[in-house]
Amino acid sequence: MNEELLTKLKSLFQIEFANTDFLKEAFTHSSYVNEHRELNLKDNERIEFLGDAVLELTVTKYLFNEYPNLPEGKLTRLRAAIVCEASLSQFAKEYGFDRYILLGKGEERMNGRKRPSLLCDLFESFIGALYLDQGLDGVINFLNQTVFPRIKSGAFSHVMDHKTNLQEFLQRNGEVSIDYVLIEEVGPAHEKEFLVEVLAEGNILGQGKGKSKKAAEQIAAANALENLREANEIEEIQA
Amino acid sequence: MNEELLTKLKSLFQIEFANTDFLKEAFTHSSYVNEHRELNLKDNERIEFLGDAVLELTVTKYLFNEYPNLPEGKLTRLRAAIVCEASLSQFAKEYGFDRYILLGKGEERMNGRKRPSLLCDLFESFIGALYLDQGLDGVINFLNQTVFPRIKSGAFSHVMDHKTNLQEFLQRNGEVSIDYVLIEEVGPAHEKEFLVEVLAEGNILGQGKGKSKKAAEQIAAANALENLREANEIEEIQA
Repeated sequence: MNEELLTKLKSLFQIEFANTDFLKEAFTHSSYVNEHRELNLKDNERIEFLGDAVLELTVTKYLFNEYPNLPEGKLTRLRAAIVCEASLSQFAKEYGFDRYILLGKGEERMNGRKRPSLLCDLFESFIGALYLDQGLDGVINFLNQTVFPRIKSGAFSHVMDHKTNLQEFLQRNGEVSIDYVLIEEVGPAHEKEFLVEVLAEGNILGQGKGKSKKAAEQIAAANALENLREANEIEEIQA
Repeated sequence: MNEELLTKLKSLFQIEFANTDFLKEAFTHSSYVNEHRELNLKDNERIEFLGDAVLELTVTKYLFNEYPNLPEGKLTRLRAAIVCEASLSQFAKEYGFDRYILLGKGEERMNGRKRPSLLCDLFESFIGALYLDQGLDGVINFLNQTVFPRIKSGAFSHVMDHKTNLQEFLQRNGEVSIDYVLIEEVGPAHEKEFLVEVLAEGNILGQGKGKSKKAAEQIAAANALENLREANEIEEIQA
């Protein structure tokens, strides 16, 4: 097993494998196995099959808990933005996983080490290996240090529609009037900024600033949701 | 909560919910929620989103462990045959879940209670509820009594290619010559039966009978795999 990878996993994530065979399998591409039949190695395809399902459940559970008011259609869209080739290959690169995968010579020449589909599979294989070695808790521990904080910070929220979320939250028990009011328009025509306020039944819930009215409304809605959530938490503490 | 459903779950599967709210949510269709807004109910869509991912992982893990020699492509095909609308809706009907879902009047009139997509969602919702109440162990306990025995008995094996599986098993450490030999052809032309033997490096591994040479070869391969597995188990016991 590559010692550098082991050291990296320990220093970055405090992860130590009890059985490094799983890790070896995760970092072995089929092209390498095909070129070294005499070594009788396992490629990472089966462990990726497992890791994919583990990642799907752990992310699903996180979103289910974190967004108790988000309807199923939106949860599905948000999950698709997280568990996709573009973002998983990005994670694999960011954590330097690409440096350690064993590739066949042909695959190496074809720049396989940089191919998003290969890196995405590698990330899922790693999750599979971690699951086999340390169970779901081990995977969740890793995701708590990597993927989940990104979700929380809004890295995938371009697929979220905050105005609809706010509306659904406010109208969960019936009709509520919601208004977006333009408060201010500042700057020259080509660099305008808009300040918008959102009100429910006439009460101000939040403000948002943006380069267009639409963007400012989205931000106002996101801020309103944040304020409402904080208020709810205070109510719960006082109750 | 419907008492009949609770009794049924207990008598059929020895399942008792600590929190029946999850079960209530799983058995509430959106059409019912829409017709009874005053009751402020939750429909089963979010819990189905969760249950879908739980089922995917539990079935994946089962297949991964049960078929250690099956390559990823075949595991994927087998899983797709299990976790699909046709089979999950069948399970929902078989266990009588269809009788207990709350539907709106329109949905009821449109025969929603028999619609495979609705029944498939219901099965996944039930898995989601069971997971929230009893964790993965609770779900696996249920699947051990329902879905997993079906997999084991070969209910989904029409998607498996036993000849390829046998070849992969025998050639996992290098080339091995495999031959299928027609031993016998009996019966009249329109009702012929074929008896085929499969040999590896000249040693007989198994026999198969079928309505075509191809079918007989598949069965011979399946029997050979079964024989090899048994022989392996004996070796392991003796070792």
